[in-house]
Amino acid sequence: MGGPICIFDSGVGGLTVLQKIRREMPDESLVYFGDTARAPYGGKDAKTLISHGREIINFFLKHDAKMIIMACGTSSSTSYDTLCAEFPSLPIVDTIRPAAEETLRQAQADNFRPLFIATQATINSGLFSRLFSDESGTELHARACPLFAPLVEAGHIGGHPTAVFAAKNYLADLRGKVNTVILGCTHYPLLKLAITQALGEITFIDPAEATARAAAAKNLPPPTAPPKISYYTSGAPEKFSSLARIILNENIAPKKLASL
Amino acid sequence: MGGPICIFDSGVGGLTVLQKIRREMPDESLVYFGDTARAPYGGKDAKTLISHGREIINFFLKHDAKMIIMACGTSSSTSYDTLCAEFPSLPIVDTIRPAAEETLRQAQADNFRPLFIATQATINSGLFSRLFSDESGTELHARACPLFAPLVEAGHIGGHPTAVFAAKNYLADLRGKVNTVILGCTHYPLLKLAITQALGEITFIDPAEATARAAAAKNLPPPTAPPKISYYTSGAPEKFSSLARIILNENIAPKKLASL
Repeated sequence: MGGPICIFDSGVGGLTVLQKIRREMPDESLVYFGDTARAPYGGKDAKTLISHGREIINFFLKHDAKMIIMACGTSSSTSYDTLCAEFPSLPIVDTIRPAAEETLRQAQADNFRPLFIATQATINSGLFSRLFSDESGTELHARACPLFAPLVEAGHIGGHPTAVFAAKNYLADLRGKVNTVILGCTHYPLLKLAITQALGEITFIDPAEATARAAAAKNLPPPTAPPKISYYTSGAPEKFSSLARIILNENIAPKKLASL
Repeated sequence: MGGPICIFDSGVGGLTVLQKIRREMPDESLVYFGDTARAPYGGKDAKTLISHGREIINFFLKHDAKMIIMACGTSSSTSYDTLCAEFPSLPIVDTIRPAAEETLRQAQADNFRPLFIATQATINSGLFSRLFSDESGTELHARACPLFAPLVEAGHIGGHPTAVFAAKNYLADLRGKVNTVILGCTHYPLLKLAITQALGEITFIDPAEATARAAAAKNLPPPTAPPKISYYTSGAPEKFSSLARIILNENIAPKKLASL
């Protein structure tokens, strides 16, 4: 009952969410799983992604998970409803629904011109547009950036020239047309600099904060042990740690999971 | 005994090998499997890749495979010896060993200045350098291009501006220093134009041809049925077909495999 909050993503991107969860709920133990061996998720179909998510949640249940954070925009857009129905007694928080709520809140401001960027699968799902535009009536630009998550997993982050070029290639025609970018994939905070170079000065909506608030708002049983964080990856632990060091600014030693 | 030749890759790249196999051995039936749901392979560790390869070969054995073509440079560099030992009665042909033999043959020419490009896992294995440089004594440049296979899987091929930029970022400092590029990943023939823009006029060694010749040289039982080609993918069939159309110049309908 008082077990850990369990967080997953296709790779390291979800660590941007883990960071906010730690800040918001410092007494909770956390388990993180990055599915690097099967990343990126962004070009995969819903059936595959639901199957991956189910395996990961079953792994988390062995760790006595009291809540699941789906810290992956692609899983959130394609697998959330199905997996909530399959695990009815387990609270599951995604990133896209809290992001849409936060965007609706900010859309009250004058001159709000939003751009939603995400993986191909997330854009194809149409979920964010339905949640935001249908509700607000505000025009929304939405664009797939299929190379962004692979850029981050390859370590080409921040102002890496190829990241800047890719961002300009995907987004430059929207410069001046949008002033707020919703980061629909948890890898994208690592590319803020490249995105700013493509679009000029803009405001970011990072779902990580809204997700952490949504998680904290759930009525969870209190932790029964001092807080502890464990990291797992299905891929190469060294690659995972070197990116984690950049995101979390600390050294972690993830355990390698040969299979789920 | 007279079953199909079975070919696999992390995704669509191995279709560049399938094409040459068809030309070299037109009477053979072929089964192709692209592991798109778990692509890219290039950042994964040997243990994961061996496990994926084992699953795929077991799937092929259900199809009565008479030979396996490991049409993936990363699997070839990390999994070949182990999987040959596990399946001792099954002929297995990889892409890196035939590529090294072909490169050794061409290295007889004057002024041969080779560059081997591949995924991070293939470069880390050191296999090609051992097979080529240790034998020839010719200096070899070798470089990892971790974004190249994801670029191809995202459909950013040929002279796509981001592909050209990525190629320049990885390779431009070698312009004038090399005159022959060995494509150590079966996705890379789709990026020849980008690579040429980075390096100027160069000669390519595409392992697909050497691999097809190595396959044809095996003493196989003759086919027992008219030739037929079947395609399978673990990912989204539409995405697979749209890239296959560009590579093979024909429409194919791959079957989706939910699990191996």
